[in-house]
Amino acid sequence: MTENVRNYIHAMGRTARGAARAMARAETGKKNAALNTVAERLSARREQLFEANAADLAAARENRLAAALLDRLELTPARLEAMADGLGQVADLADPVGEISGMNYRPTGIQVGQMRVALGVVGIIYESRPNVTADAAGLCIKSGNAVILRGGSEAINSNRAIAECIRAGLQAAGLPENAVQVVGTTDRAAVGELLALDEFVDVIIPRGGKGLIERVSKEARMPVIKHLDGVCHVYIDAEADIEKAVIVAYNAKTQRYGTCCTMECLLVAEPVAEKVLASLGPMYEEAGVEIRGDERSREILPGINAATDEDYFTEYLAPVMSLKIVGGLDEAMEHIEHYGSRHTDAIVTENMSHARRFMAEVDSSSVMVNASTRFADGYEYGLGAEIGISTDKFHARGPVGLEGLTSQKFIVLGDGHIRK
Amino acid sequence: MTENVRNYIHAMGRTARGAARAMARAETGKKNAALNTVAERLSARREQLFEANAADLAAARENRLAAALLDRLELTPARLEAMADGLGQVADLADPVGEISGMNYRPTGIQVGQMRVALGVVGIIYESRPNVTADAAGLCIKSGNAVILRGGSEAINSNRAIAECIRAGLQAAGLPENAVQVVGTTDRAAVGELLALDEFVDVIIPRGGKGLIERVSKEARMPVIKHLDGVCHVYIDAEADIEKAVIVAYNAKTQRYGTCCTMECLLVAEPVAEKVLASLGPMYEEAGVEIRGDERSREILPGINAATDEDYFTEYLAPVMSLKIVGGLDEAMEHIEHYGSRHTDAIVTENMSHARRFMAEVDSSSVMVNASTRFADGYEYGLGAEIGISTDKFHARGPVGLEGLTSQKFIVLGDGHIRK
Repeated sequence: MTENVRNYIHAMGRTARGAARAMARAETGKKNAALNTVAERLSARREQLFEANAADLAAARENRLAAALLDRLELTPARLEAMADGLGQVADLADPVGEISGMNYRPTGIQVGQMRVALGVVGIIYESRPNVTADAAGLCIKSGNAVILRGGSEAINSNRAIAECIRAGLQAAGLPENAVQVVGTTDRAAVGELLALDEFVDVIIPRGGKGLIERVSKEARMPVIKHLDGVCHVYIDAEADIEKAVIVAYNAKTQRYGTCCTMECLLVAEPVAEKVLASLGPMYEEAGVEIRGDERSREILPGINAATDEDYFTEYLAPVMSLKIVGGLDEAMEHIEHYGSRHTDAIVTENMSHARRFMAEVDSSSVMVNASTRFADGYEYGLGAEIGISTDKFHARGPVGLEGLTSQKFIVLGDGHIRK
Repeated sequence: MTENVRNYIHAMGRTARGAARAMARAETGKKNAALNTVAERLSARREQLFEANAADLAAARENRLAAALLDRLELTPARLEAMADGLGQVADLADPVGEISGMNYRPTGIQVGQMRVALGVVGIIYESRPNVTADAAGLCIKSGNAVILRGGSEAINSNRAIAECIRAGLQAAGLPENAVQVVGTTDRAAVGELLALDEFVDVIIPRGGKGLIERVSKEARMPVIKHLDGVCHVYIDAEADIEKAVIVAYNAKTQRYGTCCTMECLLVAEPVAEKVLASLGPMYEEAGVEIRGDERSREILPGINAATDEDYFTEYLAPVMSLKIVGGLDEAMEHIEHYGSRHTDAIVTENMSHARRFMAEVDSSSVMVNASTRFADGYEYGLGAEIGISTDKFHARGPVGLEGLTSQKFIVLGDGHIRK
């Protein structure tokens, strides 16, 4: 069986490599036509998609999947529409492939610049949510890549049905349908085989829980675009505008609890701590947010719980947050360096020098001044969509959109120029 | 002993990480001052450097090192001067760190852009040539990184002496001297330990023979910037200007034999093959270049040897080349796809559509039109210097200069903006 899985994944990789060559040079118009056709087919074939999804849901209920996972697995009419809309939006984005930049003449007379090209074959390993199948495939198609999708076994029927719409759209546009392949087996060995396929897969993007991402990071023989944790901070500086500080810190925690750019720890400069917390404390309480604070903050807000050292390392993804009163900018940045996860951190201040230092010195994939950490998102940044968020520094960093699925090669133009 | 090496390399990594934080925010003026001071010290301490180098040379002769390696190991007055000049040139380059680009307002009112930042800790593993010690350290200093240098054991005294000049220059400029560390043991286990140190080392750059690069690629737990082979092609199209074709193809092979961007295989379109080879054949012969050709080319140049399939895969790094007559552009690109190494490939043509297709479709780190492959070099491209050449697509591709030693994080500016 394992031998079969190996052969199956290997064949899939070889097929993807072949399709990637055609996709790398596909015309923009054809790629857009494919995306728009897929969007139409998703709507036209809604009954079949709901049927496939119902089969997954029934099996999941039988296997007593947790309610949160069942919710993520469900394909509602609104979610289907969002998937189709998303593909249309990706079609509307500028084609990154072939973009030529920086063409400069050198003293020798040659002209040197760079051309943006597709990465090749992208592997995506994800859990539950069937919409990732369409979102990820759309971004890979537009960026001229081929993709191998390995969704959760609990979503296999939904993912297959969505993939069939995508492949039909590719074919209708005259592009290779094998540019998008879904791993058709639920055998868990398939993931290991995919992670070992560095011969054919140029980058792996895991999307899901921490366990999945840790496994992929450890086993993958190819580069991985990923983030592990989102322990995001808001630091309210002594020179903050208190009104802005309060709305930013409140929004960063409460706008949505379960996202990776939700604030998990609030740092407040001692000189403004009483004033800030007098407003924020009751607001968080009313929202049902549990605060775990250090000793000084508990003097100001006596009702809150005590924070342990572990709390400051924790990504709660829930209505819980840690709180610390700090001496000022340096202590705040030290705290973020020690406890943070290099995802997204914000300062609230009117002091230009403090803002400049925070931006330059905080080593996170997104650094913000007077804005909510919740903005750390490909759509909000204008990337059009995102295939993931990277907290690594190599290649793309922060929300990864079309550009992160491409690379730049050098091009040199001459007129019979030779090296002396 | 191995346990000692592990502790030694681990301590070095931790020290580098600390220095990297200070280097990441070092002022441009201080970094430039350090580079210029190092250049001065290299000249001022020339006698000590030659002495250290003489010790390495004596040991190498005793160990019967090959003449080519002895040559690369030797520190001549001209090479010392080139090292110092190189550091001055890097000081003159624009500082990549802190560069802010693409700041755009989003519909929500936030302003989003990117800031260029250092990668962190760079590991360089290289052989023989002591000049790499100064060149690589200079690029790492300017790009705000810390570096751990592991040169060949045969150059240990030279490398240590050069490193002392560099560390003194850093200290004089008020920067941490530990930003540049040379592995001080010749124990081979040190390389393995360095490659496992992903906790502290953000990227590894191997420079040397194929064996070294294969080992580093296989063992490194962190990203690697590398190229394995340089099987570079020149394709002379049917619509080439014959005069340009002849000088480009001649220069690409003969300007220097031992470099990775030297042409190893010449492809000629059938319609112009007789004319082109009537000129080029005797020129290569006069230069002492052995040609290994396919059947058709041997009809035109009866004196040459027959090429095997293996020949077309070979990077000779010597006055030997392969030759093939092809039907046209498509066959040429198929050949390059199959036999090439994705390093540097050139087309000679006056046909605009052929040039455009070659540029877009040939999947190499440098693609050239009517120019010699020998231009594929950081200096020639205007990068100021190069720390290596990458044939991978992830992160930097082609010659890697200061920019390839940096990454971009997102910055977001608001005025109390929150996510709705």
